[in-house]
Amino acid sequence: MSVSTSGAAAGQLTRAEAIRDAALTLFAERGFRATTMNDVARAVGVRAPSLYNHVRSKHELLREIMVTTMDELIQGFHAAVATTCDRVEQLRRATEAHVRYHTRHRREAFVGSREIPSLKPGARRVILDKRREYSMLFRDLIDRGAKEGVFVVRSPRLVAYAILDMGIGLAAWFRPDGPCTEEELAQSYGQFALRLACRGPF
Amino acid sequence: MSVSTSGAAAGQLTRAEAIRDAALTLFAERGFRATTMNDVARAVGVRAPSLYNHVRSKHELLREIMVTTMDELIQGFHAAVATTCDRVEQLRRATEAHVRYHTRHRREAFVGSREIPSLKPGARRVILDKRREYSMLFRDLIDRGAKEGVFVVRSPRLVAYAILDMGIGLAAWFRPDGPCTEEELAQSYGQFALRLACRGPF
Repeated sequence: MSVSTSGAAAGQLTRAEAIRDAALTLFAERGFRATTMNDVARAVGVRAPSLYNHVRSKHELLREIMVTTMDELIQGFHAAVATTCDRVEQLRRATEAHVRYHTRHRREAFVGSREIPSLKPGARRVILDKRREYSMLFRDLIDRGAKEGVFVVRSPRLVAYAILDMGIGLAAWFRPDGPCTEEELAQSYGQFALRLACRGPF
Repeated sequence: MSVSTSGAAAGQLTRAEAIRDAALTLFAERGFRATTMNDVARAVGVRAPSLYNHVRSKHELLREIMVTTMDELIQGFHAAVATTCDRVEQLRRATEAHVRYHTRHRREAFVGSREIPSLKPGARRVILDKRREYSMLFRDLIDRGAKEGVFVVRSPRLVAYAILDMGIGLAAWFRPDGPCTEEELAQSYGQFALRLACRGPF
């Protein structure tokens, strides 16, 4: 499957990182339920029992992958908006960060949008809270801009969802060797976000 | 899982329809690989061997679900644009149709975006062709509008993808009993499509 670009290709990983990377690829390719710890062990080239020196369980791998994903997205938003006080530029840069994350982390996007039901209740609550936090960051930014008269929207919530979903969606079709570079996508989607938030003819 | 609203609740289904409906729910909840024909039989309340009077295989169920989904989306587009010659209205109505489909067929959206890799090569080619056809319908409409000066876009392809992905995305969070009705969503996303395609300040 084409989302499964391995992080291992990028350089030397520690054993724990290699396990997480192999699990991420398998979860993206086959789904969490259909992946066994034996599959993960085989992909890393170790025997299954020795996996447990590095990780507690298959569920723990999933939880860690999904927490890291959401934490990186949230950090990316804060870093992007901190670079300017201009609301329009903040929305553009936050969208660009969102897009860049999804072009670079297609496996995480795939697993994140699919495996919520595979999480145990406690972990699911944590992830759903982080997802809510992330979407609220966009929503509040649009809401503030609307109150200042910079943005003109009927529903900051729906505009936030539209921006997030169009970014998440590209993880399914973007190819690093395709007709569009990450840079072009970030610029285009940054413009899309501003078109969605600012009054034009519609 | 909340996408698994059963079509069976809507009325009396034939046995074949009930099997397809149960399979759709299970594929959406657990994924194709983790679902067995025994699971499907149990959900319909029959013994596994009798399933095969109605359906050839689990793969055949998946193929049929995904073909029907794409055919309905493509028909929905044609029906929507046939109602007017105005490009702006065509894009609005095609987007509304796309959104309505995804609020009503959340299980199909979930399975469709996730299970492409589970299809056998022949079926996968058919589905990928239909997906390409569907996205080309939006792209060509935007392209024609751009050539006529109605739309102002850098890339009709990316605008088409953004519109499609924001509609597909809502299948993951829309709830019939949530704060937004299907009608409000269709109207809002129709406006979003026009904002993406028409020149405003950005």
